[in-house]
Amino acid sequence: MIFGIHAVMEAIQAGKEIDKIVVKREFQSELAGDLFKVLKEREIPLQRVPAERLNRLTRKNHQGVIAFMSAVSYQHLDDILPFVYEQGRHPFIVLLDGVTDVRNFGAIARTCESAGVDALVIPSKGSVSVNADAMKTSAGALHILPVCKEKSIGQAIRYLRDSGVKVVAASEKATDLYTTLHYDTPIALVVGSEDSGISAENLRLCDHIVKIPHFGSIASLNVSVASSILIYEVIRQRMASRTHPGE
Amino acid sequence: MIFGIHAVMEAIQAGKEIDKIVVKREFQSELAGDLFKVLKEREIPLQRVPAERLNRLTRKNHQGVIAFMSAVSYQHLDDILPFVYEQGRHPFIVLLDGVTDVRNFGAIARTCESAGVDALVIPSKGSVSVNADAMKTSAGALHILPVCKEKSIGQAIRYLRDSGVKVVAASEKATDLYTTLHYDTPIALVVGSEDSGISAENLRLCDHIVKIPHFGSIASLNVSVASSILIYEVIRQRMASRTHPGE
Repeated sequence: MIFGIHAVMEAIQAGKEIDKIVVKREFQSELAGDLFKVLKEREIPLQRVPAERLNRLTRKNHQGVIAFMSAVSYQHLDDILPFVYEQGRHPFIVLLDGVTDVRNFGAIARTCESAGVDALVIPSKGSVSVNADAMKTSAGALHILPVCKEKSIGQAIRYLRDSGVKVVAASEKATDLYTTLHYDTPIALVVGSEDSGISAENLRLCDHIVKIPHFGSIASLNVSVASSILIYEVIRQRMASRTHPGE
Repeated sequence: MIFGIHAVMEAIQAGKEIDKIVVKREFQSELAGDLFKVLKEREIPLQRVPAERLNRLTRKNHQGVIAFMSAVSYQHLDDILPFVYEQGRHPFIVLLDGVTDVRNFGAIARTCESAGVDALVIPSKGSVSVNADAMKTSAGALHILPVCKEKSIGQAIRYLRDSGVKVVAASEKATDLYTTLHYDTPIALVVGSEDSGISAENLRLCDHIVKIPHFGSIASLNVSVASSILIYEVIRQRMASRTHPGE
């Protein structure tokens, strides 16, 4: 937590990751107006509460403003990718297009961490915020797994393709099964929200679109389950080609 | 819902699946004593509420007792297995040992339905109850997927092995990877609860114990995610052997 309007303003200006700002209900001044403007620009959530609640949060001189820092320090794809290549490994990146459910986000992070995925990418706007629920569902993975907030998923896909990464999107409308591709190369998987999937614009940017087969009447998987099946198919193929090279 | 003590008693005696019984707070009589005894025997949850709440639930003459019927009508493994064999298919059964989280249960049911699993088996004691949360997480799959409540998972494993089904347990303590087995045979997968896994007693009954590889620091997957990875490996192998027989 950061206390006091000046310290909070400085933290924002320094680009620190802030989950939300809590101010006392009657908080108002010229400086407050500046703060609210910056919060709106950066899409940082603002909450107004009775002054007593702030007093219960801290004994420090909060001056009516407390900022909750993000539990995650976001990283950048263009820092991670060269690092993985340098290690002589095939990068494995997972991108979330429009996943807003924090539990699904946490569950996907947990699988990514367990599978050794190099980074989980979310867009900086309109995406999940890493809150307590996400952290809990991730079983702590969000403390460890590199999470990248990129300007847009489209831009991230373009960057990955330019960097020699095969970008594979999962969509129920695909004709190819996910098992028909070879994943023992630099790979990025793109998964979309449960209701609307990956945007048509982003789908067009990907190298391949694949689906998971369904045999039931409901024919839909939870997005964290679908992601996990795809992630572990990549792992399976990579392990198989290590054991039986050339297979 | 079923109303009135006689109708409720009849439903219980007829073996109908009941989620819970709600009685008015001051409900007491010789018949009520009989009812409470039967409820205890069958482990059906009982709830005492003010009489007005019963009146709000129905305008019918409830006589102080309302039974909530289960949304699922349970089936039996020994009805399902012969049916699958008769169709000339390899049975594919999933058993849950000690999974009590209703959301995980619902999520596993959803994957099972989507993957065309023949039945999901839970023990009749100490297991999840199919409530509204489970139903919601299952995305309706619990209305469609055959769910079997068997006396014990151990007994179900024995029955399956006697019926020519290969029983595979998932455990993090296993040495073999899940990808090393061949699944294009009659298969049953056993998964355990997230905290304690499959009981040692039940593990000993299984043909094989396998694990999913982990590369991260947390090294654990959500139980519904782990189940889904295993389920879709079975599907992948079965589809591959149809496309390339003898592979």
